[in-house]
Amino acid sequence: MASTSSLTLSQALLARTIFSDGSIQSSDYRVSLPTTTFSGLKLTTPRSRRVLPTRLNRSLRVRSAAVETIGTPAETSLLEKSVNTIRFLAIDAVEKANSGHPGLPMGCAPMGHILYDEIMRYNPKNPYWFNRDRFVLSAGHGCMLQYALLHLAGYDSVQEDDLKNFRQWQSRTPGHPENFETPGVEVTTGPLGQGIANAVGLALAEKHLAARFNKPDNEIVDHYTYAILGDGCQMEGVANEACSLAGHWGLGKLIAFYDDNHISIDGDTEIAFTENVEERFKGLGWHVIWVKNGNTGYDEIRAAIKEAKAVKDKPTLIKVTTTIGYGSPNKANSYSVHGSALGAKEVDATRKNLAWPHEPFHVPEDVKGHWSHHVQQGAALEAEWNAKFAEYEKKYKNEAAELKLIITGEPPAGWEKALPTYTPESPADATRNLSQQNLNALVKVLPGFLGGSADLASSNMTLLKMYGNFQKDTPEERNLRFGVREHGMGAICNGIAHHSPGLFPYCATFFVFTDYMRAAIRMSALSQAGVIYVMTHDSIGLGEDGPTHQPIEHLASLRAMPNVFMLRPADGNETAGAYKVAILNRNTPSIIALSRQKLPQLPGTSIEGVEKGGYIISDNSSGNNPDIILIGTGSELEIAAKAADELRKGGKAVRVVSLVSWELFDNQSDAYKESVLPSGVSARVSIEAGSTFGWEKIVGSKGKAIGIDRFGASAPAGRLYKEFGLTPEAVVAAAKELC
Amino acid sequence: MASTSSLTLSQALLARTIFSDGSIQSSDYRVSLPTTTFSGLKLTTPRSRRVLPTRLNRSLRVRSAAVETIGTPAETSLLEKSVNTIRFLAIDAVEKANSGHPGLPMGCAPMGHILYDEIMRYNPKNPYWFNRDRFVLSAGHGCMLQYALLHLAGYDSVQEDDLKNFRQWQSRTPGHPENFETPGVEVTTGPLGQGIANAVGLALAEKHLAARFNKPDNEIVDHYTYAILGDGCQMEGVANEACSLAGHWGLGKLIAFYDDNHISIDGDTEIAFTENVEERFKGLGWHVIWVKNGNTGYDEIRAAIKEAKAVKDKPTLIKVTTTIGYGSPNKANSYSVHGSALGAKEVDATRKNLAWPHEPFHVPEDVKGHWSHHVQQGAALEAEWNAKFAEYEKKYKNEAAELKLIITGEPPAGWEKALPTYTPESPADATRNLSQQNLNALVKVLPGFLGGSADLASSNMTLLKMYGNFQKDTPEERNLRFGVREHGMGAICNGIAHHSPGLFPYCATFFVFTDYMRAAIRMSALSQAGVIYVMTHDSIGLGEDGPTHQPIEHLASLRAMPNVFMLRPADGNETAGAYKVAILNRNTPSIIALSRQKLPQLPGTSIEGVEKGGYIISDNSSGNNPDIILIGTGSELEIAAKAADELRKGGKAVRVVSLVSWELFDNQSDAYKESVLPSGVSARVSIEAGSTFGWEKIVGSKGKAIGIDRFGASAPAGRLYKEFGLTPEAVVAAAKELC
Repeated sequence: MASTSSLTLSQALLARTIFSDGSIQSSDYRVSLPTTTFSGLKLTTPRSRRVLPTRLNRSLRVRSAAVETIGTPAETSLLEKSVNTIRFLAIDAVEKANSGHPGLPMGCAPMGHILYDEIMRYNPKNPYWFNRDRFVLSAGHGCMLQYALLHLAGYDSVQEDDLKNFRQWQSRTPGHPENFETPGVEVTTGPLGQGIANAVGLALAEKHLAARFNKPDNEIVDHYTYAILGDGCQMEGVANEACSLAGHWGLGKLIAFYDDNHISIDGDTEIAFTENVEERFKGLGWHVIWVKNGNTGYDEIRAAIKEAKAVKDKPTLIKVTTTIGYGSPNKANSYSVHGSALGAKEVDATRKNLAWPHEPFHVPEDVKGHWSHHVQQGAALEAEWNAKFAEYEKKYKNEAAELKLIITGEPPAGWEKALPTYTPESPADATRNLSQQNLNALVKVLPGFLGGSADLASSNMTLLKMYGNFQKDTPEERNLRFGVREHGMGAICNGIAHHSPGLFPYCATFFVFTDYMRAAIRMSALSQAGVIYVMTHDSIGLGEDGPTHQPIEHLASLRAMPNVFMLRPADGNETAGAYKVAILNRNTPSIIALSRQKLPQLPGTSIEGVEKGGYIISDNSSGNNPDIILIGTGSELEIAAKAADELRKGGKAVRVVSLVSWELFDNQSDAYKESVLPSGVSARVSIEAGSTFGWEKIVGSKGKAIGIDRFGASAPAGRLYKEFGLTPEAVVAAAKELC
Repeated sequence: MASTSSLTLSQALLARTIFSDGSIQSSDYRVSLPTTTFSGLKLTTPRSRRVLPTRLNRSLRVRSAAVETIGTPAETSLLEKSVNTIRFLAIDAVEKANSGHPGLPMGCAPMGHILYDEIMRYNPKNPYWFNRDRFVLSAGHGCMLQYALLHLAGYDSVQEDDLKNFRQWQSRTPGHPENFETPGVEVTTGPLGQGIANAVGLALAEKHLAARFNKPDNEIVDHYTYAILGDGCQMEGVANEACSLAGHWGLGKLIAFYDDNHISIDGDTEIAFTENVEERFKGLGWHVIWVKNGNTGYDEIRAAIKEAKAVKDKPTLIKVTTTIGYGSPNKANSYSVHGSALGAKEVDATRKNLAWPHEPFHVPEDVKGHWSHHVQQGAALEAEWNAKFAEYEKKYKNEAAELKLIITGEPPAGWEKALPTYTPESPADATRNLSQQNLNALVKVLPGFLGGSADLASSNMTLLKMYGNFQKDTPEERNLRFGVREHGMGAICNGIAHHSPGLFPYCATFFVFTDYMRAAIRMSALSQAGVIYVMTHDSIGLGEDGPTHQPIEHLASLRAMPNVFMLRPADGNETAGAYKVAILNRNTPSIIALSRQKLPQLPGTSIEGVEKGGYIISDNSSGNNPDIILIGTGSELEIAAKAADELRKGGKAVRVVSLVSWELFDNQSDAYKESVLPSGVSARVSIEAGSTFGWEKIVGSKGKAIGIDRFGASAPAGRLYKEFGLTPEAVVAAAKELC
């Protein structure tokens, strides 16, 4: 029996009739929405098989709907030329690279054109202008859509040569959109579902800042967030989590276009995705609109955006039914156009079909001319806003100063003095509690500091006591309540971090549940978002909840990830040090692992020590030549210190090293590293309540790593430490074997 | 300004009126469902403030609704006694442990009682009876509910002493349900959302096996899957992913109870979870019923189950509105009863309130007597089924033999002969393609082999060519189409694996997206589910898609996880070896990392070698004393082999080792390990297209690990290998520095 995949696909092709003007009729729409939620525009009646409609009809329709836009809409023939320019830039770039995804840009070119040419406010010559509208291509594989639009709009980051270097080494047009490579790209997308969640974060940031800074006479923060997501994004759980929050928070200025093309890599979505997306989104509290003809229904798209903007208390999902690979006579509406070059023959056929006589990468002069006004317009928009800000600054000096800090990312001078310090006499406490002291200290000095927990605020100790909850009607507050949505939380924080350099989002859950949000953490690291991950209950020390809740391999697995600071402070000073590192490094996420259990304030710990990643907290040796080095992190540093006391009683010269962050230690000079871990001393014992994986690098082949290389267990914490051999006695015994 | 969390909570308390008979009226239900989807039962009119309703009323109602059940319902007074027994077993166990979650068991005791006493078919003395109904407590923190029910039902795994040892070292009643500790627990839960997704897998397995093996005269596979999930599970994206698939697949015998108690750890769900769950589930294709009084509305619960069973083409969500901590006069309906012991004073108050005069852990004789029939009844159910199977076996010999293999987990004799083998002359090929040859070979000999990809079947090469797609109307097929839902896919496969020992589920995506499903992979490892993870595009070798799609730290991060075989085969023989390991180890998940790019068939590779994790593929040294050892995995083993050729030309004695699985190698004898990596040889160079994290263990402090300790980039694969220094020349240069 043959695989049914191709069967299913061809059935789907039969079931869908595509008319030459781009309108679609399908026999398998299960959705029947009440008409009140529609854009009000009717599906264009299928017409004759001409490829392009008459100029007159289109032109009239353009004018009739072109309200509330900032651009002057192009005449229809020009508009269609522009849309086809976008399509062919995508086709040509993918063809030249012989790699990429032409299908989405071909289908989404109309909505892309309308957004960048008529709707969005931006300044191509300053992609970082604060008050710009944000755009996120959540379906990141379709990045040629965005590159083509940035190119036409006049961004310096995407020149013709960049398009020709699509997906090549060190080009500014990589295989998926990367904010750190291509100014104009807001966030990094590609892993599905992340982008729409980032967009929720961007919209949250706008709503929060608008609520804090806008004045009746001066709405200094005022932009929209737009996103395009596909069927793939819709299937991802992270998208549902974030969209549930967007609905809960009433993010009215978030407008998401759902590219409903019914095709994913495995073929027709019929084989795995038959849910009613509109009904789900209504359940999530969104306003939903359906544009039935996304291929050529420019007015429908415009009207939908207008309607979406009018709904101020809900985010809007505009489902736009499109044809993937629109224009390709033999490959449109099939998975073959999703992720591969069309091939020379089909490119030719598509050129014929769309009446496109031009060479590859050609932008017709009139299209170029039309788009050229965006540079001037963008400069004017920014100048206008700058003037507005000058007014604002005159009238609202303090607010302006705060807002400036958020816009520029500069922490205020002396901010670090707010960090609490401790002495060995300070009371023992869990580092999760000490963390809360830091959070509440930092929020007083950092105007862009905000965050929260995935339903564990009272366990993670993450409430900002001076503030209430960020909610639909109290968006000026700074406690974010994410519910049990770790993955969405991380991705939303990435969006917040990328909104403005001076926003410092933190988010929290149990350390073990970094597993739920690992894809978002990786995006923080890759896209250089300095999100602060407050991860409590960081070992078997959490006790009775048992192995499902006890991290084992998590320290190792996050130390292995590039561009992450994995910090595991041992007490108050080290916790403050961890926060100092987190605040100072805006391009690297910091993950702070914190204890549930009480820990003493250890002599020798310091903020400065933490900044070096590894340092000596006590030593009775001389000449950089101890008999043995004991190395610990977090809650086990105390155990190492106790073992050292014991060994010193026996006459040994013992050094105790806190290795709070391996990455920071790696970044130090060889001389410094040698001063802490001299290569001549091979007698080394490490202790950490986690996997020993990776510790050979620190203790060497002659040393001993004490840890846990199995899953944990459910029992009181003290019992577990004993049963798993994490005791001063075990460290002493191991040390005695080595020296 | 005070934190608003307590405010929100008290507002919520004000907004909800709880009547003494347990019925609830809330002013904040935003949901207005058409009555046709309800159970048809009306909300009980609030009555006088007596705690217990009259016996007569209740008794009548019990009888009227007690249809289609297998147990004889207890008389109402006894029923309420039984329900309170469950509540107090939970209260007492949590109190004794001074740790745990009493709130859910107190609220869910009625539905728990009805399920285990009246509805479910099981045999307490054989928790592994094949045709039992499956029950999953997705809200795993409420495990005392399940332990109390298993205890009452007569499971040997939960005796009175076990209840008294709740959450203690080596007890059979750990802090969250663990299938590997407690027979009667089907899957391991606690991390939210996993359980409901496991339940989808269990129900999928039943539907699949029923379709394959049932005959018109003998429905040998026939059970339901029940689950209880809470607000937390509902918020998790993994739950939405799995439930979307359950709706798509029409899993009519999946019945999920949503414990709608409006309380999570952070307080009232109002602060983060205001979506319309019913509307979302209808969108997902589920049948939805609302039981408005889950506290005492026994008949409503019964009627809902009856209605759910009548709907055969859709899974059913029964939203059961309950009061968390029902019965506790001062803590019910608040977060304080969610995750902490009530405290002696409140336990006393609750005893008074529910008129419960008994000592802790007491099970009244009449309650004990009532439940005692389950042992006999369970034995009878199993005996009846055994007889049915004997009949089946007589009539349908081949099918019975296949089904037996699935039930027992024994692979058929000689199955491993089906694995393909290769010689160096076999054509070069990507290991993803070689993997597909294995999948298609295995499915011919393993009746329980099935699986699929998260929308990447044509990239992961995971289609079973002899079979069609498992779909609503073709459930006998074996290709699972998961859509872009990696996390749900993994958790569903855990459910399939735990359904029957002879089911071998595999699932696939790009290796980098193990990040999306890591929590499910960890549950495979912890709960000992031998799921096969087919993870292709396993390095920068995937090329142009760029860093969002290129795994770097993933090998290290999965090697650090306990009870996982992380396998990275280099060619055809090693791919076959990886599958052999995966099939033979039913209690350990195997993750097979596979290349997108073509690789040669290397001399010296073998299935047997893979089984040892690390082995010599070529060596021109003698006396176990090479000048240098080159170590590679996967696609880089070829590079190591080329470098060896070059070094040998220069007169060096070079050993090349394939370290295809570190865990398997660790499991070998010291003598074997010494024979492969002699401790006297410190000149070692490793090469792997991933993080070098952890490689110090293999190459030692004097050796050199060649890898990638930054994110990847978008460019053709060949260029990337060159730019990242993963070349034979680099290995040769490193080797020359060492020997």
